[in-house]
Formats: sequence, structure tokens, C-alpha cells
Amino acid sequence: MAQLMETVRNGVDTEQMYGTLDAIDAQPELGVFQFRATNHWVDGAHNRTTIQEFYGAGQVDVSRAEPFVIDAGEPAILLGKDTGANPAEYLLHALAACLTTSLVYVAAARKVRLTEVESTLTGDMDVRGALGLSKDVRNGFSNITVAFKVKGEAPEEKLREVVSRAQQRSAVFDMVTHGVPVSVEVELP
Amino acid sequence: MAQLMETVRNGVDTEQMYGTLDAIDAQPELGVFQFRATNHWVDGAHNRTTIQEFYGAGQVDVSRAEPFVIDAGEPAILLGKDTGANPAEYLLHALAACLTTSLVYVAAARKVRLTEVESTLTGDMDVRGALGLSKDVRNGFSNITVAFKVKGEAPEEKLREVVSRAQQRSAVFDMVTHGVPVSVEVELP
Repeated sequence: MAQLMETVRNGVDTEQMYGTLDAIDAQPELGVFQFRATNHWVDGAHNRTTIQEFYGAGQVDVSRAEPFVIDAGEPAILLGKDTGANPAEYLLHALAACLTTSLVYVAAARKVRLTEVESTLTGDMDVRGALGLSKDVRNGFSNITVAFKVKGEAPEEKLREVVSRAQQRSAVFDMVTHGVPVSVEVELP
Repeated sequence: MAQLMETVRNGVDTEQMYGTLDAIDAQPELGVFQFRATNHWVDGAHNRTTIQEFYGAGQVDVSRAEPFVIDAGEPAILLGKDTGANPAEYLLHALAACLTTSLVYVAAARKVRLTEVESTLTGDMDVRGALGLSKDVRNGFSNITVAFKVKGEAPEEKLREVVSRAQQRSAVFDMVTHGVPVSVEVELP
């Protein structure tokens, strides 16, 4: 029982984790994933994304019984009706969530028990860019800050190392800091 | 009444839109916005973001009576319990939502009535990067594709122009394609 408890750290089954790492290391093609999302416009700034299947580990993963349904919107000052967080806020959420999960997984692998992880993110944006009012400012955030509060059963140096390593491993941190090629196609009726 | 109907197009109040554009154009400092998100780790791959206030148009906007609460997770194969879409999927949602809202706003400004907007996004990722198994592959998506289906009361050429303009104006499209500087700070107990 003590051994069984030991394999789960920070809510992560480390035996399963090492098994997954070994399997993908042995068969690199299992590492090929494709995530998918479908979005429907509802009205005005209100639109809704549905996420369920993805491809990974050599097959379409249909293990999710129900889709995740995510509503986006804009506040009144940006001409919406607050039907959901706005897209830029969802980008902050994606970044926070990815850094946090990376941190938790890295800590689990390094035998660090975490007791608390909190992060506050801010993104500065001059909306004249996206509104087409100025060519001198970009559309997106000029910069993002992430402030982490981390508590765990490890020396300060070890905790800093885990946060640093999480940044190096995070998929969304990589995408948000380095960018991704995006191709857009349009089908008309 | 006919006139009143006319000001709302695609669910966007175009009179309010022009008023907002004029106000920010006249007083550029009103365009300074800051979006904010706070994330708490729950357990394993489960973490939760709360989004409510933001700064914009010269003040902290407290018009949202309730926060948006957004749960993230990972599927079983990535060591989670499907407590929410995963962070990379949320990035696809942020991109889809922003392109769609930009498209709807641009169409409203250009007097194009839309009847349907749907987009399907895919993001390809070799998870060996994020799992630390290979230095030859990046952590994030190698590429993202966005396939739009757009219907509206306008010639095909006009609809294509609106989609193209939406890409040029979208905040998240800018961020995902070009990247954003991100600074991470850590506070330890």
C-alpha cells in the first residue's frame, strides 16, 4: 500500500508516466498527435467551440464520452454581451494551464511534492491595432507576464528549477513565445 | 424601426461600433487594455482559471458580475482525467474564436450579412518535444490549419475579402503566428 501510494505524486501516476515515456521512446510514431476543434458562430461576438476527438498514439482517441463545449464572447465595451471570456483571455488561460500542468508533471518526475501552485497572468494590448486604428501597434498582446506562487516539499532552489524546466517543456509556452505557422482555407457555398 | 434594425448587423451594433472607434481614435489612451487571468492547480493535470476584471478605456472594467471559470485537463493517454480540454486545445479555441469574431465584426462594418460561419481547426504535435524525449521536435504544434465555411448575403469575392481582412485584424492570429514576449516570475513562500 505504501508503494502504491508512492507511485501517485501530485495526482500524477508516475508509473503510468514512465510507461508512456518508454513506449513513445521505443516507438516514436506513437508521439504523433493531432488536436482538433470545431467552432460555430452563434451571434455577434458569441461563438462556441466543440472539442472531443483527437489523434494520438497511433489512433483516433474516442475515449471522451462527451465533448467539451466552450463559449467565447466579448465584454460590452468591445461590443459583445459577455457570453464567455474573450479570445485573448482564453489564450492567457491556455498558457497558464499548460505551464501549470508542465510544472506538476516535471515535479512528479523529480519527486517533488507540490502543495500549491497559483499563477496570475496579464496581457497588455493596445486595441487600436485589432480595431484597425493604428498601424504602429500590433493586434495582439505586446507582452505577457506570468507570476507564479509555488509551494512544495522541496528546497527553494529545487522549486525554481522545476518552474524553469516547466517553461522549457510547455507546448503552449513554446507556441505563444515562438509562434506557429497557421494556414487558413475558406470554403464558400 | 427599419432604421433601428439596420444598425444591428450580424448581432453587432454598428452605431456603437463606430462610436467606439471614433472615441478611441480621438483619445488613443482609451485603447490601452490589459487582460487578466488567475489559475489555480487542483490536482494532477486539473487546473482552473478564473477571469473577470480587465483594464480598458481608462479604467478597471468591473461590469462582469460573475467570473468566467474555466477548467483544463488532459485525456487519460496524457496522464489526466479529462477534467477539461487540454491547454493546446484551448489555444485552438482561442484562435478559432478570435478569427470568427474578427470576421463577424469586419463583415458588420462592411455591410455584409453573414448567415453561417463554421471553422474546423487542427494542430499537429509530436509530443516527444513536450515530453522531453527528443530535441529535434518542438514542444508546440508544428502547424495549425483553419478551414472556414462561410455563408452570407454577398458575392464570393466579398466574402473572401472579409475572411482575409479578419486574419489581418485578429489579435490571437497575430499572437499565434508571430509570438509574444512572455516573462515568468516565481514567488516562493
